[in-house]
Amino acid sequence: MGHEGAPPGPGGEKRSAQHEGAPVKAALLEALAAAVGPAQVLTEGDLSAWEVDWRKRYRGRALAVVRPATTAEVAAVLRACAAHGTAVVPQGGNTGLVGASVPDASGTQVLVSLARLNRVRAVDAANLTLTAEAGCVLQAVQEAAAAQDLLFPLSLAAEGSCTIGGNLATNAGGTQVLRYGNARELCLGLEVVTPAGEIWDGLAGLRKDNTGYALRDLYIGAEGTLGVITAATLKLCPQPAARMTALASCADLEAATRLLQLAHARLGPGLTGFEVMGDLALTLVARHFPQLRRPLAPDPAAPWTVLVEQSDSEGEAHARGLFEGLLEAALESGLIADAAVAESVAQSKAMWHLREAIPLAQAEEGANVKHDIALPVSRVAAFVAATDTLLQRAFPGVRLVNFGHLGDGNLHYNVQAPDGVAAADFLREHEHAVNTIVYDAVGRFGGSISAEHGIGALKRDELAARKSPVALALMRDIKRALDPDGRMNPGRVL
Amino acid sequence: MGHEGAPPGPGGEKRSAQHEGAPVKAALLEALAAAVGPAQVLTEGDLSAWEVDWRKRYRGRALAVVRPATTAEVAAVLRACAAHGTAVVPQGGNTGLVGASVPDASGTQVLVSLARLNRVRAVDAANLTLTAEAGCVLQAVQEAAAAQDLLFPLSLAAEGSCTIGGNLATNAGGTQVLRYGNARELCLGLEVVTPAGEIWDGLAGLRKDNTGYALRDLYIGAEGTLGVITAATLKLCPQPAARMTALASCADLEAATRLLQLAHARLGPGLTGFEVMGDLALTLVARHFPQLRRPLAPDPAAPWTVLVEQSDSEGEAHARGLFEGLLEAALESGLIADAAVAESVAQSKAMWHLREAIPLAQAEEGANVKHDIALPVSRVAAFVAATDTLLQRAFPGVRLVNFGHLGDGNLHYNVQAPDGVAAADFLREHEHAVNTIVYDAVGRFGGSISAEHGIGALKRDELAARKSPVALALMRDIKRALDPDGRMNPGRVL
Repeated sequence: MGHEGAPPGPGGEKRSAQHEGAPVKAALLEALAAAVGPAQVLTEGDLSAWEVDWRKRYRGRALAVVRPATTAEVAAVLRACAAHGTAVVPQGGNTGLVGASVPDASGTQVLVSLARLNRVRAVDAANLTLTAEAGCVLQAVQEAAAAQDLLFPLSLAAEGSCTIGGNLATNAGGTQVLRYGNARELCLGLEVVTPAGEIWDGLAGLRKDNTGYALRDLYIGAEGTLGVITAATLKLCPQPAARMTALASCADLEAATRLLQLAHARLGPGLTGFEVMGDLALTLVARHFPQLRRPLAPDPAAPWTVLVEQSDSEGEAHARGLFEGLLEAALESGLIADAAVAESVAQSKAMWHLREAIPLAQAEEGANVKHDIALPVSRVAAFVAATDTLLQRAFPGVRLVNFGHLGDGNLHYNVQAPDGVAAADFLREHEHAVNTIVYDAVGRFGGSISAEHGIGALKRDELAARKSPVALALMRDIKRALDPDGRMNPGRVL
Repeated sequence: MGHEGAPPGPGGEKRSAQHEGAPVKAALLEALAAAVGPAQVLTEGDLSAWEVDWRKRYRGRALAVVRPATTAEVAAVLRACAAHGTAVVPQGGNTGLVGASVPDASGTQVLVSLARLNRVRAVDAANLTLTAEAGCVLQAVQEAAAAQDLLFPLSLAAEGSCTIGGNLATNAGGTQVLRYGNARELCLGLEVVTPAGEIWDGLAGLRKDNTGYALRDLYIGAEGTLGVITAATLKLCPQPAARMTALASCADLEAATRLLQLAHARLGPGLTGFEVMGDLALTLVARHFPQLRRPLAPDPAAPWTVLVEQSDSEGEAHARGLFEGLLEAALESGLIADAAVAESVAQSKAMWHLREAIPLAQAEEGANVKHDIALPVSRVAAFVAATDTLLQRAFPGVRLVNFGHLGDGNLHYNVQAPDGVAAADFLREHEHAVNTIVYDAVGRFGGSISAEHGIGALKRDELAARKSPVALALMRDIKRALDPDGRMNPGRVL
């Protein structure tokens, strides 16, 4: 589905051969240079760091890459683009998975990188808030909170390079959602630059604020199509005193779901992680990363492995008592066949590493059809049973690599070519049909075709085809109201 | 500020003497009767239950009170109103505090009561969700959850008569927000009827769903100005195994704020309530409700009383150990002067009753200028010190009745006439000046003029004067986009 632009040209000469006339473009570039300084308006050389997405599925070409360092500079850039009727593509860490933050191939879009807006503006420990600029790397936000012995709980694989602005623009999920919510629930206030270049300072650090429409929530998850997030006030939590991690094996997804219910009941808000991994997912990890130890031996009678994490506000001994009590009860009642509790931080990290290695192992195994779907937790097992059957019937021998955040009903339900079939051939021939089977089933089970990755360019057509027409019409009304010229990240989401 | 319409007329005759011509009105009434049945279109007799707000500050007159029983009937009503260009005022339990759910005095608005949409459609225990219609009374939702040994944590004084639709339309807060969030955070999906009478079925029970703009969040807190919420899918939690409640006395609000930090650190997510009550607030309770026992004797050296609530997922003994440890540490470090722990459910209820009796005691004492404000928790003490001084300087002897949800930074900072001054006179002469002092200070301290009650008609002018012009313009753009004829609850919010 990736659109393929011409490879990025080497210099400015080629870049001006666009549908915009050269004098108009020169005036825009001059205005941009006036806004941010000439050194921060990039038009020449290798711009692939901004123009090619992380998965290398989208290769675009920007009219210019502009790197403002302050909110005022972002506003000046957006005013310049507004004056010239130019489209704007905001970009954070460029780690997105749906092609939402690279320019298209037209060479007419200005890419606004927020990477230089990277200050933590304030930490207010007594208010449990932190205010960070959009370009702050997620890990830097986590570290700034930890320096005050506080926790910013958003956590995902790309945390070393994704930015908080991107996290909010995509309403990022990750591994702690069942306890702390998505990025949306972790944000109290935003600063946003509108398409016209006005600054909305909505950086309140308030737990309650009922003064009109939820503008904050509208920009969160809008993928840069309504405005540019430049800063956010984020919720912090007390650091847990202790964390426990375990792997447990289950006979089926129904047992895993019942284990989740038991964990909710026994650990209450102490339950902070509940991941699931199918046997094939761990088999691929073992094949491609044999150095990673698998604490539980593969057991054909218990092919599903669950990773349970508990965070405890009291301490190690209390945590261990609760955690082992949960696992013993689960063993006794037959919900799990076996369990291994991490005895050290290193062992805990190794368990998480197994989980995080799955997408990498899949990539080593060959291209596959990825799905980031959500379902009511109560329907996950039935969905997987029904959809596995449909796919096996349509594509005998197809390999279903299934893992994800069961605690949130979020599966990465990925479809890999049968053994012996070339991955590229399978994708080329069957990707569309696979998507149709999976997304049709998602619809029947009351689920979502994008749980945490967003829509971007990748799922735009699926959204148009599958979202309720009433919802789509409302979304288009909002888009028209807040971005009347359609210049904000065009071609994404809607 | 309340506008005073003529008292409701006794019959249909007077009601048709409006600016709409009688034939037009007759056609609309006919269409409404076709939509819901003639018995559910009320135009005669005493309609004050719908036309007068709970505080009796707003007295309006409806063209008709319409009582649909299903979402399809709501849609038919809204289509009829759209066809006749008629304004619609949605109403739940009519317990709001800002005049957002009664018609104006024009006699041209159709009041749509959601009270008959009162079914709990489903409880999905494994998904920790419940789907309820808008007219469900909050307490009925709590009870439906409890019947499955689950908790719906939204809790507020009006829970016996307010409805979940109204709770969502106003993004209700209450006493459990510091742990569970506002109504917004407790809602996963909505069903909404648009001004044109279309039904958006967004009733997903999904923890993650990144498929476009946050329509759900836009309708939540919009006070019926964008559409009519007809049903919602709500988040449930495990029931706590035990609850502890205590009162503690503090020398000042700074000590109370430091106690809050200590409670966060020691109880983690077990901290579910943290209320504060000023000495004068409890003095008024003692004066007007002498039968209510005050467990802590008044102490001039510690005039602030805090109510702390802990919810525990393990049990009574564990809860008590943690809770008493917190209070002992606070006593030792001098954060609190004294404390009383409830030894029974009855004692716990009595403590909450003291807190809940404050507004009633204030009403007995005489009319007062009420404020529902939010501040960063870290700035509450400084705000109160500064604003108390300003008010005392402007109105010597003025009595500041201050209480609220300190855990959320939400104060009900109410201003009562000096002893010996008639309340009505004080209000008539000084309400505006008091508001100006308080709201100016709220602005300087980064706060909100409406924490949990909303804007309605009461604070519409303040909002227009005080909200950022950029935010107001964005809100007006959204209103125009989703309600182009301005027929949804006109004169409220914007």
